[in-house]
Amino acid sequence: MIHHTVFFTLNYPSGSAAEKSFFKAAEVLPTIAGVLEFKKLKEVSPKNHFDFGFAMKFEGKADYDLYNRHPLHVQFVEQHWMPSVSDFIEIDYEVID
Amino acid sequence: MIHHTVFFTLNYPSGSAAEKSFFKAAEVLPTIAGVLEFKKLKEVSPKNHFDFGFAMKFEGKADYDLYNRHPLHVQFVEQHWMPSVSDFIEIDYEVID
Repeated sequence: MIHHTVFFTLNYPSGSAAEKSFFKAAEVLPTIAGVLEFKKLKEVSPKNHFDFGFAMKFEGKADYDLYNRHPLHVQFVEQHWMPSVSDFIEIDYEVID
Repeated sequence: MIHHTVFFTLNYPSGSAAEKSFFKAAEVLPTIAGVLEFKKLKEVSPKNHFDFGFAMKFEGKADYDLYNRHPLHVQFVEQHWMPSVSDFIEIDYEVID
């Protein structure tokens, strides 16, 4: 199981309509086949500058690859992610013993 | 519920005895009161340089604060984390609607 997380800052003021619109647009992501347990996150550590995050899981790399090139994901990235996100970090992981 | 995660690189070669020893020492962390669902993670995204992670949950900030100042945690940080970890990022989050 691959855990895919991304943490980011937005170009919009906290609580703004643009911020709400961005998160509304992101609701397309969990409709993509293979996306499991999609969650929107509020980053709360003072030790980094990120404000929000998304988390989801994939059964394996094949599903992750399908997601990455899925037209709904590509469209979200082009129309919402790129104009909205000022900085981000992607962190993916698997649980080990 | 606060999700506390930290991703890091070690000063040790992959698979080395020193690496194993570090993870063995980390097994003290989930014995601390308030630490829920402690997990060791392998970071797998090529988009950042971190190799490993720890994840855990706390019911709230009080438990998180107790963990941070718990002698077993402080001892782990001083004796194992500081000499072993070359870089890290802490990311904490709460799930939002």
